[in-house]
Amino acid sequence: MEQAVLQLGDAVAVLERTPAALSALLRGVPDTWARATEGAGTWSPFDVVGHLVHGERTDWMPRARHIISGDPRPFTRFDRTAQFDESGGKSLEDLLEEFAELRAGSLAELLSMDLSEDDLARAGLHPELGPVTLGQLLATWVVHDLDHVAQVARTMAKVYAGAVGPWQAYLSILRDRRGETA
Amino acid sequence: MEQAVLQLGDAVAVLERTPAALSALLRGVPDTWARATEGAGTWSPFDVVGHLVHGERTDWMPRARHIISGDPRPFTRFDRTAQFDESGGKSLEDLLEEFAELRAGSLAELLSMDLSEDDLARAGLHPELGPVTLGQLLATWVVHDLDHVAQVARTMAKVYAGAVGPWQAYLSILRDRRGETA
Repeated sequence: MEQAVLQLGDAVAVLERTPAALSALLRGVPDTWARATEGAGTWSPFDVVGHLVHGERTDWMPRARHIISGDPRPFTRFDRTAQFDESGGKSLEDLLEEFAELRAGSLAELLSMDLSEDDLARAGLHPELGPVTLGQLLATWVVHDLDHVAQVARTMAKVYAGAVGPWQAYLSILRDRRGETA
Repeated sequence: MEQAVLQLGDAVAVLERTPAALSALLRGVPDTWARATEGAGTWSPFDVVGHLVHGERTDWMPRARHIISGDPRPFTRFDRTAQFDESGGKSLEDLLEEFAELRAGSLAELLSMDLSEDDLARAGLHPELGPVTLGQLLATWVVHDLDHVAQVARTMAKVYAGAVGPWQAYLSILRDRRGETA
């Protein structure tokens, strides 16, 4: 079922659903869930939503524009921990709302670009990975969203790693990414 | 942040959000996503929602009742693949709606039981794991929900394992549970 290239409509179908999926999962949950982590150096659901807000401002559409503009310079590096400063003083609900608004704007702009197959094959220069196409960027945006949805669910699950008692043996999510940092 | 015992309010906060989270993620998505799997023997998002519907009918609240009733016999075994028969002819949207209705009923019944700390410490007999408490059952229900939310996100992400090109190196979700069955 793996696809070598993305279909724009399929990608947008996921990208437009992520804010609502995270809101449904997180809005109003006790801090037991919102502030849980998988251990030192890993992110809470609150941190993850802040990271998605930052990515929406600085990563995805700016890089898409960069590729379409034909700029031969490498992309600006993405700051993977900017949310630890930027989310200060905000609530999880503020961040979820901000993410939803920014994502709606990103997708409106993406669709207004009316991208052709040729556009999706255009390349830009990633500072570490080298040449990457616009299609690969958009596929990465989708997978990045889903990676963080899975991370939020996994992080919450681990709060009850002890509370499940003997059932631990059946719940493989409690063993995923054990000892890794985000 | 790991908790040895569950707090009923925390558990309900997750359990009541799962149907809306899965609906937000999946309702109306193209079959590219709804019918994707991680390979032979693994489940699509459609299969997962069918499994959650079956669990809602036969697993969680029936076992909670069993424990509270003081029945010394082991729980009825849970059929982990019942959805392959039961979901036949249904749409993903049918299953999402059925899941939301059944879950609302389960939680109404759970709350009406007005469980005390002593109730949560009562034990029933699992056919393979031996004695388990009601609190452990409810914690397992929560983790089981989150495990399947993460599975849906991971399964969808892997559709674009090739489409992301060189970014594959950065997207750890594409390497989670590689070669494992559901």
